[in-house]
Amino acid sequence: MSTSVTCIAPVNIAIIKYWGKRDDDLILPINDSISVTLSTDNLRTKTKITAGPEIAKNVLRLNGVEESFENPRIQRCLQEVRRRAKAAGKCPNPEMLEWNILVESENNFPTAAGLASSAAGYACFVYTLATLYGIESEELSGIARMGSGSACRSLYSGYVQWARGERTDGSDSLAIQLAPASAWPEMHVLVLVVSDRKKATASTQGMATSVKTSELLKHRVSVCVPERVKLVQGDFDTFGRIAMKDSNQFHAICLDTFPPCFYMNDVSRTIIRLVDQINNLAGENAPIKVAYSFDAGPNACLFLLEKDVAEVSAIVRRVFPFNESTAEEYYKGIPNDEPAMQAVPASVLESFAVEEPNLLRYIIHTKVGEGPKRVD
Amino acid sequence: MSTSVTCIAPVNIAIIKYWGKRDDDLILPINDSISVTLSTDNLRTKTKITAGPEIAKNVLRLNGVEESFENPRIQRCLQEVRRRAKAAGKCPNPEMLEWNILVESENNFPTAAGLASSAAGYACFVYTLATLYGIESEELSGIARMGSGSACRSLYSGYVQWARGERTDGSDSLAIQLAPASAWPEMHVLVLVVSDRKKATASTQGMATSVKTSELLKHRVSVCVPERVKLVQGDFDTFGRIAMKDSNQFHAICLDTFPPCFYMNDVSRTIIRLVDQINNLAGENAPIKVAYSFDAGPNACLFLLEKDVAEVSAIVRRVFPFNESTAEEYYKGIPNDEPAMQAVPASVLESFAVEEPNLLRYIIHTKVGEGPKRVD
Repeated sequence: MSTSVTCIAPVNIAIIKYWGKRDDDLILPINDSISVTLSTDNLRTKTKITAGPEIAKNVLRLNGVEESFENPRIQRCLQEVRRRAKAAGKCPNPEMLEWNILVESENNFPTAAGLASSAAGYACFVYTLATLYGIESEELSGIARMGSGSACRSLYSGYVQWARGERTDGSDSLAIQLAPASAWPEMHVLVLVVSDRKKATASTQGMATSVKTSELLKHRVSVCVPERVKLVQGDFDTFGRIAMKDSNQFHAICLDTFPPCFYMNDVSRTIIRLVDQINNLAGENAPIKVAYSFDAGPNACLFLLEKDVAEVSAIVRRVFPFNESTAEEYYKGIPNDEPAMQAVPASVLESFAVEEPNLLRYIIHTKVGEGPKRVD
Repeated sequence: MSTSVTCIAPVNIAIIKYWGKRDDDLILPINDSISVTLSTDNLRTKTKITAGPEIAKNVLRLNGVEESFENPRIQRCLQEVRRRAKAAGKCPNPEMLEWNILVESENNFPTAAGLASSAAGYACFVYTLATLYGIESEELSGIARMGSGSACRSLYSGYVQWARGERTDGSDSLAIQLAPASAWPEMHVLVLVVSDRKKATASTQGMATSVKTSELLKHRVSVCVPERVKLVQGDFDTFGRIAMKDSNQFHAICLDTFPPCFYMNDVSRTIIRLVDQINNLAGENAPIKVAYSFDAGPNACLFLLEKDVAEVSAIVRRVFPFNESTAEEYYKGIPNDEPAMQAVPASVLESFAVEEPNLLRYIIHTKVGEGPKRVD
């Protein structure tokens, strides 16, 4: 009698950062943001939703652990998808819209690693629910946005812009695709997951405090971001430099907040210096080879072109040795091209100082990827 | 035949930070700054200058090590003091102005600790030279400024403002005393010297890169600083909150610089969180008890009133235990009031988590103090 649908949705990494809401309930941002959707081959949320008349109450299970369904953000997404499904009249079995649901969601990466799991999670929840109710082709980003702001960007593949919008009801604060993943097939991504024992400020709370207290945030929003949004669609050098500057500016705003919130740690800063050193290998004014971006956590997302993956990976491996993991645990995702890595000249490698072991938990090699899809 | 003079000069800590020059040669700043002069009882440079016809060449010895006298900043200060001495005609022995000099300078704190040693050093050099040549009563801050910008503030006691000035020749970019040390006798200072193995960007280079690349710096200079300069002379709560916000904003600008420069480390951030926790002991909206300020390095300067010294010291001691130093090496400066520290309730202390040992190298307890003086 019950029906179920299973879908997956990707993680996205903002290169122009979202930080600050103009409406806390509707989750409307104070500035546009631009993100890159990462491949679901390596990082994804998978969500199965079962609807049935025999299900006694709504249940939410995240990575096997039952969580409260009373979360207002979950409630709002559920109500909004149902409202649209009723209006569209495409539900294969309209009775289903009254049944309770069982939501089982799991990530193929540790939630605690701070890898934007709420964006993938809400995108997957909304997309799976819409698929179950027969409206997966509707514009869903405005609904996912009400679950977690950045989730709206995980509904599209490739390069995605989330518009600030002007309306107070949020109806124009939606995500659009700027370019598909296939537009730039050479783009690769290395996610460096940093060991960290400190619990950071939750980003919802952090951005609320920034909006209240940071004087520099006003200037960022009115002057810096609009300019960057216009410039970012250029070559890799332009893209990478803007990504780095915007990541730095976002963390600068966090520091200008009172009391300040910190997301990067000393290892994050070592990664920033390392990227700078790699980019200076060919001279100070040469086009860059690799760019970093840090979300509200210590992990780095490195963007680079396929031709530079072997060299950069070999350097990262040298600088951040491990001895608590096996190589398979340490390097995840797209397999290393070992012969190409071996070919990196020793003179290049040896110009980089080796840090103490185990500063990174692991490295995920991935690419730009597709949006959500049904997998059952 | 030779003549010598020995003077001391204090360290100062900016609470509204100087960051960025409008003229690199004359060292003219892009914004006003305000500082607190620390007591020479605990932190000072002592400089002896000997002039004599038998001295074959100019010699500069810092902490016993000979340094180049060709440094253009040293040369400029020397020439400018001599020019003024000639113009004033007060030199007891005008021949002396043609003799070579031997400069012997030493700090009573480690230079490497990043405690604004160049400010105290140039202030002491200029003051000692002026004393030797009989012009110590002249306005010397414009000369010290040409050695090291912040040195101009070390020529005055208490609370000092260095004006940006408007003129291109720098003649109005001088320091003035806002209030003597005696105006606020309850003000105490704890300097937390943080262990750090990374060499930071030199501040001269860092601020030049900030001026070139930080978009947020323009807003800081034109909007934030002028407002803070007006507000800072209030009660301790106002003073302390502005000091903390301006320190944070300065480090935010460093992070918004490309490539970013980092001066605080994870221990600095732990201190910031600790201060926030201490200030919340009496409730989130209670007046603050302690404020931090970080210069271009990881060390914290904590400002607090005498009545709170025992409690704050006891908490800092608990959070940052040591086992590589003796208590005498670890707590320097004004002696601890042990009975008052013992009286801090265990329930207060136990609300603070203990960090791993030796994150701090030592703690210096001092007060606001006097300007340079002759000591021989």
